[in-house]
Amino acid sequence: MKKSIGAKTIVYPTPVFIVGTYDENGKPNAMNVAWGGISCSSPPCVSISVREATYTHGNILNKKAFTVNIPSESHIKEADYFGIVSGKNENKFASTGLTPVKSKLVDAPYIKEFPLILECKLVNTTELGLHTHFTGKIMDVKVDENLIDNGNPDIEQIKPFLYDPSSRSYYGIGKRLKNAFSVGKDIKS
Amino acid sequence: MKKSIGAKTIVYPTPVFIVGTYDENGKPNAMNVAWGGISCSSPPCVSISVREATYTHGNILNKKAFTVNIPSESHIKEADYFGIVSGKNENKFASTGLTPVKSKLVDAPYIKEFPLILECKLVNTTELGLHTHFTGKIMDVKVDENLIDNGNPDIEQIKPFLYDPSSRSYYGIGKRLKNAFSVGKDIKS
Repeated sequence: MKKSIGAKTIVYPTPVFIVGTYDENGKPNAMNVAWGGISCSSPPCVSISVREATYTHGNILNKKAFTVNIPSESHIKEADYFGIVSGKNENKFASTGLTPVKSKLVDAPYIKEFPLILECKLVNTTELGLHTHFTGKIMDVKVDENLIDNGNPDIEQIKPFLYDPSSRSYYGIGKRLKNAFSVGKDIKS
Repeated sequence: MKKSIGAKTIVYPTPVFIVGTYDENGKPNAMNVAWGGISCSSPPCVSISVREATYTHGNILNKKAFTVNIPSESHIKEADYFGIVSGKNENKFASTGLTPVKSKLVDAPYIKEFPLILECKLVNTTELGLHTHFTGKIMDVKVDENLIDNGNPDIEQIKPFLYDPSSRSYYGIGKRLKNAFSVGKDIKS
């Protein structure tokens, strides 16, 4: 029996995207974003939602660029910190000791210590309400080369984690279950 | 050292959203969507990206409504099947034996056997390229009542899973790691 719990923002999984931007003075900032996901295959795009009140919001509109940085479990503390404080008040790279690297492709910094990063150019801005929905065209994906297996990033070595909006906590990635576009073929009539 | 792997749609995690719609004759359909995520807190919104070639695309535009259904691991085979065949050619509910339930709030069916469902009204449509990006206002969330703990859906009992676009496989949810908005406070200066 299903129970109504109201109009809440609860789905599984939601990501932990650390969004990298520069402010107008070139100060790098990073923000923790759980509202987002891949949004187009061609051109490859990723969308993120950010409140207007955030420092990141103005930075994206000014620079028309952002990075999406995927943290490993080993940086869960830094990732969470990026969602607690505002870049208006603190230099989050200085506080964490993480290293901003200037992208050669877009006007935004990526995080050297994080294993997988996407460099994005802003292509669409949609006002949805409390959040502005930004879509970036993915110009390149960069991965720590020791975490690549058979030419592709290896999720089991990268050890990303996810956000559970129901319990407001982070979960790891579990076991590999099945091949996609495969396990369902038995049902195909 | 980071290695460029090109402009690919690889992030972690991406979800397994099963999108429920009706066609113009009231036939229910379900499709597997990995490109999407929560996109606004107020009003609560979820966004999904769907190719124009799919049956779901026309259904959403016609009915201005869809549901997002989160499968448990126990339905991984059905979830994958929903991404392999088109509703143009098959009645996917008949093939799987799953039960479409007509939403009382939106003109779309949800899947009775899936533990968590979102009923959505279309509020924005953005053409991004190969994919159309649909944003739905979440009208209600319904959860199997035996999977609610302390008033909230319990991810550990729901057992959702995720899609890894790099290996094209499904992974389970791992261990609970840390509290969000908490573990990073140590860094706050």
